[in-house]
Amino acid sequence: MHSVPVSLGSRSYVIKIGDGLLARLGAECARLQLGSRCAVITDANVGRRFAKAALTSLAAAGFQPVLITVPAGEKSKCLAMVEKCHNELAAHRLERKSFIVALGGGVVGDLAGFVAATYLRGIPFVQVPTTLLAQVDSSVGGKTGVNLKSGKNLVGAFYQPRLVLCDLATLATLPRREYVSGLAEVIKYGIIYDAGLFARLERQLPQLLARKPGPLAAVIARCCAIKADVVGQDETESGLRAILNFGHTIGHAIENSSGYGKYLHGEAISLGQVAAAELSHALLALSAADVVRVRQLFGRAGLPVKMKLTTAYRAKLVRAMRLDKKVSDGEIKFVLARKIGKVLWNQRVPAAMVQAALDGIAA
Amino acid sequence: MHSVPVSLGSRSYVIKIGDGLLARLGAECARLQLGSRCAVITDANVGRRFAKAALTSLAAAGFQPVLITVPAGEKSKCLAMVEKCHNELAAHRLERKSFIVALGGGVVGDLAGFVAATYLRGIPFVQVPTTLLAQVDSSVGGKTGVNLKSGKNLVGAFYQPRLVLCDLATLATLPRREYVSGLAEVIKYGIIYDAGLFARLERQLPQLLARKPGPLAAVIARCCAIKADVVGQDETESGLRAILNFGHTIGHAIENSSGYGKYLHGEAISLGQVAAAELSHALLALSAADVVRVRQLFGRAGLPVKMKLTTAYRAKLVRAMRLDKKVSDGEIKFVLARKIGKVLWNQRVPAAMVQAALDGIAA
Repeated sequence: MHSVPVSLGSRSYVIKIGDGLLARLGAECARLQLGSRCAVITDANVGRRFAKAALTSLAAAGFQPVLITVPAGEKSKCLAMVEKCHNELAAHRLERKSFIVALGGGVVGDLAGFVAATYLRGIPFVQVPTTLLAQVDSSVGGKTGVNLKSGKNLVGAFYQPRLVLCDLATLATLPRREYVSGLAEVIKYGIIYDAGLFARLERQLPQLLARKPGPLAAVIARCCAIKADVVGQDETESGLRAILNFGHTIGHAIENSSGYGKYLHGEAISLGQVAAAELSHALLALSAADVVRVRQLFGRAGLPVKMKLTTAYRAKLVRAMRLDKKVSDGEIKFVLARKIGKVLWNQRVPAAMVQAALDGIAA
Repeated sequence: MHSVPVSLGSRSYVIKIGDGLLARLGAECARLQLGSRCAVITDANVGRRFAKAALTSLAAAGFQPVLITVPAGEKSKCLAMVEKCHNELAAHRLERKSFIVALGGGVVGDLAGFVAATYLRGIPFVQVPTTLLAQVDSSVGGKTGVNLKSGKNLVGAFYQPRLVLCDLATLATLPRREYVSGLAEVIKYGIIYDAGLFARLERQLPQLLARKPGPLAAVIARCCAIKADVVGQDETESGLRAILNFGHTIGHAIENSSGYGKYLHGEAISLGQVAAAELSHALLALSAADVVRVRQLFGRAGLPVKMKLTTAYRAKLVRAMRLDKKVSDGEIKFVLARKIGKVLWNQRVPAAMVQAALDGIAA
């Protein structure tokens, strides 16, 4: 088992990564000195597979868990669903020391984390991410939230979990498309922070695509350690943390403008990262060879590197970018790479250059 | 002008109390180094009187304010209204450095504060409380939130304002019932923290009921200083802050069980404080003379000290108390007074004693 500490003073916690950890959920929670009541929030798909194991483990450790199941999919990330969960917590008499277990992918983690952040002005919660994307990204760092009609994650809170348990066994049943989507965030960590990780991904991609537990656990642990390092330096994204958004300005715009769900998050940020690499070549002299390596690794992973871009759709993308949380005084800022493993944030990009970068991903 | 600092490390701020401060809103905000866009959130009643002054002052200081008006009353403290506000903020392109001005009473402050706490995971906000209750209590200390069907303030966040501006002029037009309701919190500060304040209230009650600016400003400043002192020692209510809830366990149950709005908050906690004084007499040897002083001061202020209590209604009250946020492992805890000016929190009270205390407020 890998253990990655996240250092945030009194809000510090540990990410544990290993095979079969779900069976130890109750025992791990027992070490946190929480109240006896808890709620497992999951979605219909994940719940069918893993809810029973979670509830059994919690009950065996002396907790009184209740199960709250939300519909699977991004649509559940809304304030109406938050309120439904709140009402169930109140009906089950959860108190300030009670806790929430988020069992699922990014949608469940973001939703359940925000529910925990806002119920009784905040109760403890534990993340049990069951997708690759959630294990390397959304479950770590304390970003929680839901969507508005006008944009993704526009509502939320910074709220840290008390523990993150990544059970590799939950990845085995993940549909291939979803698993591959998670690799887009894995590759991102190489680009923004660790050229060695990037090279390792180039070498080990076949084993990772085959979900070999050994290499997979090591790579997930490295991604979590990078995220923990970044978040530990800048919890609320006043600076450095912005580098985690490499590829996300265009990526979020693609998700937003295509209707949630057409592109998976990883697919959208694959396109966003390729476009950001092109921008980086034009503005920060990222070498043409590095742009090729970036494009090739996403391509080999089975992620999209090109899409159809009509004039109307391009305009829609730019409008969506302007609504992004990262916009400041109306100016779109990008994270750009100087080389693989080294990025700069807060880079102004003229509108014409954004269009040129979009050319780079136009089919 | 009185100026009361609230010391919370990097989240410290100042409460300013004086006559005609609303006209200086823009100038005061300009000192906070925020973005140029802002939203004034108010309700229909307050907006009619003061929105124009707020917008004019902000615009004169170079800000671009938009106005968001919600219906007056407790019904607006719900997640659906939070989402409506979020959507308006997004439509007006508010960004991370943009800010919200909460212009109104407790409902507006709690709602707008929670909107600020959750939009883009938190943007700055400024409180401009326009009721006595909000000036001495809800605008200070960072508790924000909305109601669930099953209870008041069950959803929320601890989120500090960047500035609180209390303009005494806004109190002049307050309906008498609402003004008097605010005095219930004022009296509470005397009971929990400052016997000298309590004695002063006994002496100056006629001037305070006449809303004389001089004595009123001094009393508001003292209440804010007490709250700031308590919150500064215990921001998230893990201990001491609980004393601010004197009278609130029964008070909230009365509000909740009578349908929101039948009793104003101050009226409900007037009853709650009288009952808590009776409990304190029985359990902590609060003197009979002090119980009489407490009962008399609330009575002289024009606040209720008795209510009709059927058997069914008593049962309803106890059920509501069990859902209170202050419940831990199913046990109802009270704040009780040893003498006027000195209370203890976290006091277990047997169910039979709660009934006996209710006898003390039964008409």
